[in-house]
Amino acid sequence: MYLTRAYIDSLEHLYKINLINSVSGFKSANLIGTKSTKNITNVAVFSSVVHYGSAPPILGFVVRPSSVRRNTYDNIKETGYFTINHIHHDIIEDAHHTSAKYSSEISEFDKTNLKEEYLNDFYAPFVEGCPIKIGLKYIDEYYIKANGTILVLGEIIDLHINDSLIKEDGFIDLLEGNVTAINGLDAYTVPKIKTRLSYQRPKN
Amino acid sequence: MYLTRAYIDSLEHLYKINLINSVSGFKSANLIGTKSTKNITNVAVFSSVVHYGSAPPILGFVVRPSSVRRNTYDNIKETGYFTINHIHHDIIEDAHHTSAKYSSEISEFDKTNLKEEYLNDFYAPFVEGCPIKIGLKYIDEYYIKANGTILVLGEIIDLHINDSLIKEDGFIDLLEGNVTAINGLDAYTVPKIKTRLSYQRPKN
Repeated sequence: MYLTRAYIDSLEHLYKINLINSVSGFKSANLIGTKSTKNITNVAVFSSVVHYGSAPPILGFVVRPSSVRRNTYDNIKETGYFTINHIHHDIIEDAHHTSAKYSSEISEFDKTNLKEEYLNDFYAPFVEGCPIKIGLKYIDEYYIKANGTILVLGEIIDLHINDSLIKEDGFIDLLEGNVTAINGLDAYTVPKIKTRLSYQRPKN
Repeated sequence: MYLTRAYIDSLEHLYKINLINSVSGFKSANLIGTKSTKNITNVAVFSSVVHYGSAPPILGFVVRPSSVRRNTYDNIKETGYFTINHIHHDIIEDAHHTSAKYSSEISEFDKTNLKEEYLNDFYAPFVEGCPIKIGLKYIDEYYIKANGTILVLGEIIDLHINDSLIKEDGFIDLLEGNVTAINGLDAYTVPKIKTRLSYQRPKN
């Protein structure tokens, strides 16, 4: 099927967001945990977390100022800290429910079976039971002129990983952790089989 | 395992990049196709393509100026156009090989079985056989001060999707397309089973 830009622009809203949210490929499935200065916690599903660098270790994610996930952004701006927690097989439903539009006065931890966990005095809540839990400090943000979204960048301060997932060369086996990936806005998959390839050099 | 930032910073280079490239979760697996003003094509694997918006449809990806993928960036800056093509099960090895450091005078299409394809007069080459092929026009870039990487944004101009993958509500089933996801720097997985959940509203 060939879809021109004019055709895409003419699509009905829900059809269009299903389509364009699927079109980039599989996405990371993360819960971002924050806590306001009033001590109200927040946890929300994000599928835009991306690696920006390893030295220093930097991750970024995209926030849409008009969305429910604005609470996440406000808490990070107020306090400087947030956590990224991997959505695993057992918490898919609760993780997805955090996309519901709760006010900033209500914690999604009180509306789901997700449990907040505090580790090593890190300010923001981790999500208990996640195989990978990352504590980050806000470093910078970029306002995207084209559509008003914001790229938020954080550096990794603390990292908690289930021991068995880390291999000899530093590779973290996400499949062994039953970590999910997201397809579109609402489909979750738990990949089962992987192929590791070698470092590639030019052929003659 | 608890890894402090000081410990992460002290890790050996390869261990560190394996670890931090795995830590964000599963990543999209895409081939970005470009063509220089000298008519030399380039195709390179990227795992940082992210959805920035649906109206207008905008995708972004991250490029490290010092890397081999600089050819991709240079071609986009020179010509304004690029393609994003989904890596599917049958081309994993060739797709991964595009990470080898070829000079800008050599096309990865000549060093692999990947075939360039031109559709509807779009300037940049698509990758033949990919279930999803996206033609994009460069719109903007953001220089990331923290580490010198660049976020490149493009708007979707043309979209080619295998008919059977698009569902009634616009959802594209990546699993039916045998589309891959990336774990870390070098592991590819083809997810097989998915769960679609409903739109979430607050509980009382």
